[in-house]
Amino acid sequence: MSDTPPIITLLTDFGTRDIYVGVVKGVILARCGAARIIDLSHEVGQGNVHEGGYLLASAWGYFPKATVHCVVIDPGVGGDRRILAAEVGGQHFVAPDNGVLTEVFNDTAPTRVVSVENQSLMIQPVSQTFHGRDIFAPAAAALASGTKLDDLGPATQSWLKLPRVEPVEQDGEVIGQVVHIDRFGNIITNIRAEDLPNEPRVQIARHAIHGLAESYQSVPRGELLAIVGSTGRLEISINQGEAAGLLAASVGDPVYVRTASE
Amino acid sequence: MSDTPPIITLLTDFGTRDIYVGVVKGVILARCGAARIIDLSHEVGQGNVHEGGYLLASAWGYFPKATVHCVVIDPGVGGDRRILAAEVGGQHFVAPDNGVLTEVFNDTAPTRVVSVENQSLMIQPVSQTFHGRDIFAPAAAALASGTKLDDLGPATQSWLKLPRVEPVEQDGEVIGQVVHIDRFGNIITNIRAEDLPNEPRVQIARHAIHGLAESYQSVPRGELLAIVGSTGRLEISINQGEAAGLLAASVGDPVYVRTASE
Amino acid sequence: MSDTPPIITLLTDFGTRDIYVGVVKGVILARCGAARIIDLSHEVGQGNVHEGGYLLASAWGYFPKATVHCVVIDPGVGGDRRILAAEVGGQHFVAPDNGVLTEVFNDTAPTRVVSVENQSLMIQPVSQTFHGRDIFAPAAAALASGTKLDDLGPATQSWLKLPRVEPVEQDGEVIGQVVHIDRFGNIITNIRAEDLPNEPRVQIARHAIHGLAESYQSVPRGELLAIVGSTGRLEISINQGEAAGLLAASVGDPVYVRTASE
Repeated sequence: MSDTPPIITLLTDFGTRDIYVGVVKGVILARCGAARIIDLSHEVGQGNVHEGGYLLASAWGYFPKATVHCVVIDPGVGGDRRILAAEVGGQHFVAPDNGVLTEVFNDTAPTRVVSVENQSLMIQPVSQTFHGRDIFAPAAAALASGTKLDDLGPATQSWLKLPRVEPVEQDGEVIGQVVHIDRFGNIITNIRAEDLPNEPRVQIARHAIHGLAESYQSVPRGELLAIVGSTGRLEISINQGEAAGLLAASVGDPVYVRTASE
Repeated sequence: MSDTPPIITLLTDFGTRDIYVGVVKGVILARCGAARIIDLSHEVGQGNVHEGGYLLASAWGYFPKATVHCVVIDPGVGGDRRILAAEVGGQHFVAPDNGVLTEVFNDTAPTRVVSVENQSLMIQPVSQTFHGRDIFAPAAAALASGTKLDDLGPATQSWLKLPRVEPVEQDGEVIGQVVHIDRFGNIITNIRAEDLPNEPRVQIARHAIHGLAESYQSVPRGELLAIVGSTGRLEISINQGEAAGLLAASVGDPVYVRTASE
Repeated sequence: MSDTPPIITLLTDFGTRDIYVGVVKGVILARCGAARIIDLSHEVGQGNVHEGGYLLASAWGYFPKATVHCVVIDPGVGGDRRILAAEVGGQHFVAPDNGVLTEVFNDTAPTRVVSVENQSLMIQPVSQTFHGRDIFAPAAAALASGTKLDDLGPATQSWLKLPRVEPVEQDGEVIGQVVHIDRFGNIITNIRAEDLPNEPRVQIARHAIHGLAESYQSVPRGELLAIVGSTGRLEISINQGEAAGLLAASVGDPVYVRTASE
């Protein structure tokens, strides 16, 4: 570890009206007094493992080495799902084994994954409803304090993977789908910039968009546009408007791209 | 104080759309440059002293010694209510004398309580509408910097206590009430695990639940269950659903428990 | 810089459901490992430069010297608006050149302003949609790490200023307007305490209020009152109620004050 204080990020579906986030922070600070706690988001949809995994995959790569990401989107709490701790690209993750780490692992193969089972690092007695407090937070604090991954539990080679949702190509057309809608109503797809034809014609719902915009401002205010967004994927937006509302778009909706010259 | 930087938590009803939280943070950092500020919640219902007190009592025990909890749920700002600073279990609290500390004090008797009156530690002139900025934040920063409790104002032996809402037992039945509904729609009662009979039959509104579930997953998805929650109290939930919505439950609603074998 | 770790505040319209705030935090921490990141608010209305500027002007003065305020309310992202970095009263600001700093600069003249153009301090390639990540966060981290303002880009003497909305006096009447409505439904005007006549009669919509209240509690619960608020400006409130809802008040609505004795 460097001489800068350790960083622990939190990504949960706890919301901020309750005290669950506060309790997790207390447990971390009581066990790793030097930790800096960074809120990623607590507004992930309840139990929405796909959304949480997408958000996490979009953010983790920007954090410095040795960061510990504590991910509590855990609809299976108290059941028989395991809890994983993983080392990926010099950072650590603590998360339920429910697929929420799928996209992170697709980006960068983990160097080591363990099943968190060391009872002596948990708050005892472990509750059946709040493993964020009793298992996740203590595990994250331990890793941030320099505890070795192997001290958390036995290594494992298998874990739950969510099906990879990749665009398909068919008859010269790329068929992708909506993977996220952000606060601004931007519609984010899974189609990568490098999969786009020259002069693309993008179709979503009953709307067709010709060509890629250089920026939101390169079309008139209120007009629909297609653009390569900040994660390198095709997005559909309205300059200073909300595309998702106008198009009634939802996560999972299909998006079709072909070359406009055909 | 240890060599880790001091911790100041914030629990308010300010919301996060306004700048009030930001101003409080600025005042703290200007007076205690080393402080780490931890957001507990800013979404307490406006002036809801009961809710704030419940949330605080659920969280404070998890924080390390010397933590300062700055609680600004203060509908009486500018009136004649006092502001208290207290030492409880090696931690500090700054809060209005409106009962918000009742549950904390019920858990653990305070070792010392003072009335915050030292004008030289306040932002002058003190406003009539924002004591969070002018009195609470400077007092919390002073305590975090090592100022003694007695330097904030004179000791006091009396303060406002909210009535204790405890379950009653009557004709072999435990009658408690709903004390909180969380983001997941879990209904949290004031009935402790140790007050439950064997084979309890739990009744709320027109629904009866037989027996205690081991975990959310031990009943089919969408089904109602009773469980001992993470604070050791009876909770009523739906596996991957929202119990409070289905039952139209509200804080204060009665909950009846008797033994199922009768 | 002092020996306390540097402070970077964030004020954005990103909301907290998405990962944009988390990404900005990661970029900052990867480039300034010691930084303490303080959330001011992420709930500024989308692209609402007036609101963001008002909130910023209300908060920055309470922060200690050397604080870096990173302001990303940037509807013009990807267009030809510049990005400014400024030194004001010993603190630093990074913000789009869209007028959001107008009120800060009106309060305290900046000692130096540069246009952020140093490509080597940006994340390359710079996206067209997320300059918060690619330009603002790296610039803020650089300033917090001790990089000189002049290393960010060339000095500039001109920038976009929003029109100053000041009350006018006409026929012995002060005519101001609503500049903000807070979470509590308090209606905040731009009329300063020193511009108020003795015994003011305040009129808003069809309601007239006679005299200034000393505090919310000095009128009966539920009653309308006029008060000098925490920023030294006239506010219209209801004791433990929401004035803005009752009066259907909006930002920009006129407020009339004359002396009641006439």
